[in-house]
Amino acid sequence: MATGSVTDLQAYCQLVARQAHAAAAQLAQVTDAVKQRWLRESARRLRQQQQRVLEANARDLEAAPGFGLTAAQTDRLRLTPERIDAIARGLEEVALLPDPVGEVIESRVRPNGLEVARVRVPLGVVFFIYESRPNVTADAAALCVKSGNAVILRGGKEAAHSSRAIVELMQEAAQQAGLPEHAFQLVATQDREAVGHFLKLDQYISLAIPRGGEGLIRRVVAEATMPVLKHYAGNCHVYVDQHADLDMAVRIVVNAKCQRPGVCNALESLLVHREVAEPFWAKAAPELEARRVEIRADEATRRLVPAAKPASDEDYATEYLDLILSARVVDSLEEAVEHINRYGSHHTDAIVTGRLDCARRFVAGVDSAAVVVNASTRFNDGGEFGLGAEIGISTDKFHARGPCGLKELTTYKWVVYGNGQVRE
Amino acid sequence: MATGSVTDLQAYCQLVARQAHAAAAQLAQVTDAVKQRWLRESARRLRQQQQRVLEANARDLEAAPGFGLTAAQTDRLRLTPERIDAIARGLEEVALLPDPVGEVIESRVRPNGLEVARVRVPLGVVFFIYESRPNVTADAAALCVKSGNAVILRGGKEAAHSSRAIVELMQEAAQQAGLPEHAFQLVATQDREAVGHFLKLDQYISLAIPRGGEGLIRRVVAEATMPVLKHYAGNCHVYVDQHADLDMAVRIVVNAKCQRPGVCNALESLLVHREVAEPFWAKAAPELEARRVEIRADEATRRLVPAAKPASDEDYATEYLDLILSARVVDSLEEAVEHINRYGSHHTDAIVTGRLDCARRFVAGVDSAAVVVNASTRFNDGGEFGLGAEIGISTDKFHARGPCGLKELTTYKWVVYGNGQVRE
Repeated sequence: MATGSVTDLQAYCQLVARQAHAAAAQLAQVTDAVKQRWLRESARRLRQQQQRVLEANARDLEAAPGFGLTAAQTDRLRLTPERIDAIARGLEEVALLPDPVGEVIESRVRPNGLEVARVRVPLGVVFFIYESRPNVTADAAALCVKSGNAVILRGGKEAAHSSRAIVELMQEAAQQAGLPEHAFQLVATQDREAVGHFLKLDQYISLAIPRGGEGLIRRVVAEATMPVLKHYAGNCHVYVDQHADLDMAVRIVVNAKCQRPGVCNALESLLVHREVAEPFWAKAAPELEARRVEIRADEATRRLVPAAKPASDEDYATEYLDLILSARVVDSLEEAVEHINRYGSHHTDAIVTGRLDCARRFVAGVDSAAVVVNASTRFNDGGEFGLGAEIGISTDKFHARGPCGLKELTTYKWVVYGNGQVRE
Repeated sequence: MATGSVTDLQAYCQLVARQAHAAAAQLAQVTDAVKQRWLRESARRLRQQQQRVLEANARDLEAAPGFGLTAAQTDRLRLTPERIDAIARGLEEVALLPDPVGEVIESRVRPNGLEVARVRVPLGVVFFIYESRPNVTADAAALCVKSGNAVILRGGKEAAHSSRAIVELMQEAAQQAGLPEHAFQLVATQDREAVGHFLKLDQYISLAIPRGGEGLIRRVVAEATMPVLKHYAGNCHVYVDQHADLDMAVRIVVNAKCQRPGVCNALESLLVHREVAEPFWAKAAPELEARRVEIRADEATRRLVPAAKPASDEDYATEYLDLILSARVVDSLEEAVEHINRYGSHHTDAIVTGRLDCARRFVAGVDSAAVVVNASTRFNDGGEFGLGAEIGISTDKFHARGPCGLKELTTYKWVVYGNGQVRE
């Protein structure tokens, strides 16, 4: 179905969702050999037919100014032979990840002889809504299908041609590998109303995953009738304890703030114990200033860092995603924990300390998806945690927390074997 | 705060939720020794001061006719020394269950030396809404607090005095054991609007658990801003395969249908392979008729069971919770699986078969919380599965599926230990 030919949008969305639901039932029983074959064959075709993808991408790039894309956004949209090769390598890496489906999570034999097992199974159908980068199309299809789920891909209009070319190649590979026909489908309309229709189809769709700005996520949460994997803000902290190795603390702070300031696990707010504030800032301030980091701080910090501006309460609650850092001096570890739980976003928070009891108190007290001791906040990531690729980072506590890889795209069923047991 | 004295309901709900949230932060770090002490001391006080509970219960029983309770409902409300002892034993059993908090679910050391662990932690605050039976008050408080969560208990008006007496005893025990003051709170108003206020307080409450009729659950799902543990219908099936031991099949069918027909894991719909329909029904029909089970069936079954009435499509989709059974003859295991996935409620479905490949195909194909081979559907239960007590049976796929015990009331945090690692 070509873009624009959608006459009855609601009926179209119903059809796509029903097809996905039927494919999911088959896909739950597809062996990993088939899934691996599909992923490897997709990678091979992407490399071999890269010209086809580059031509589609050229059409997207032509249209980019019309969508008002900035130079940076246009660059993220641009595919090159190297970038296509990276997408292909991504698929090969997902192929190699262990298939989560069928894992016996726990099992026991009951006193009456019943054998009870909790067995990992796919969730069903995932509705994935994302913005412009075309590589996300391939990643999301790979992760959802590898974990046994059918997926409905709703990409941004800016990358529509590139995404369609990639999906077509992967569908040709799917046919060759023997994957169900509707295991992954790209929504063939850019009509924004389609998203609303899909979000009401909870009889077919098990999970919605919006990947993009906060506006998109809030819209999906408000409209969805199925669970949503939420990926909200990362207002991440580093707390430099009085027992910190200050050189290590400076390295971690500089890395967490500056290595990639625009991402959700970058440092936004720095808390320093009063006892070490002076020597710490004597080392840290020149490093941060050399990297043009603007510091917004309380009075105690400003006395040590004359260039710092005053911080408001709102600063402490803000995810800058920029070379700006809020800072505060605290009197104790407990004060740091309280500040983090109050102003933070429960994403990623780190302590730098040499003392075991301080590390343990911080880990126990901070209510965040990831709590890090003596390392950069930037490590909160599916790849860095060893989950393989990730479909998103959950800021919820329910179902999955932090990086979501293949396992987090599954649920379980209870499988019970008996030999005629009845209940007394 | 006494019932009726609530002047500003919304402010009251806010206060209760804020207190619960503060208690949850402390409770997450309370050792199991303290939780065990509290549960054992609660049991001791319940037995020792049973008169106090019986007197409160007498007031509820007096009021019962005014609430229009039936004789059966009034009996469920009634406490006796034996029933109070059973509640106390329940608390002692929960005390003995392994504390799920702090369990390292998985861990690995990354190539850069980072130690990454997924560690089980409580969800936070549970809002538990339930109907009349007073023992549920004690059970829910025990399960939520044992798993490290604070809980807000909203019981039915019919058991208000009994529940308050039980909570007061358990709070006295909590003080003695050193549990945080607001670890569990009974909502001190019967105003129905209070539920609506709590369901909007997702900044404090992590999970809502409604336990009661479908109307209650639908209301909670519609109004809640936090996740809801849903416990919808159980339209459970038994499929008698052509390779079944027919005597075993009859035993299982009779048990699943008749042992306790009013519960969610009771049998509602029976599918029989055409090859064995005649001998199976020759054995089964007299057993079911002797127990006054009304059979509603397709034509093929009715030819074998003259007393059976015709079944409509709606019958196959109905959870009777009564001595009524819908039945159908099917031509294959695949047809049985398709029927179950179409008409069932994804709760509990069983096959009776002697053939391994049939068992495996059924287990793989049926998309239900529990799939049972050669045993009664009645075993889908936290106690029978070895989880200890359960707070409910989830009919969702997200977060938890089937019986929910202590583990299902938890989430996890990622805990990362390094020695100065930064990201390149």
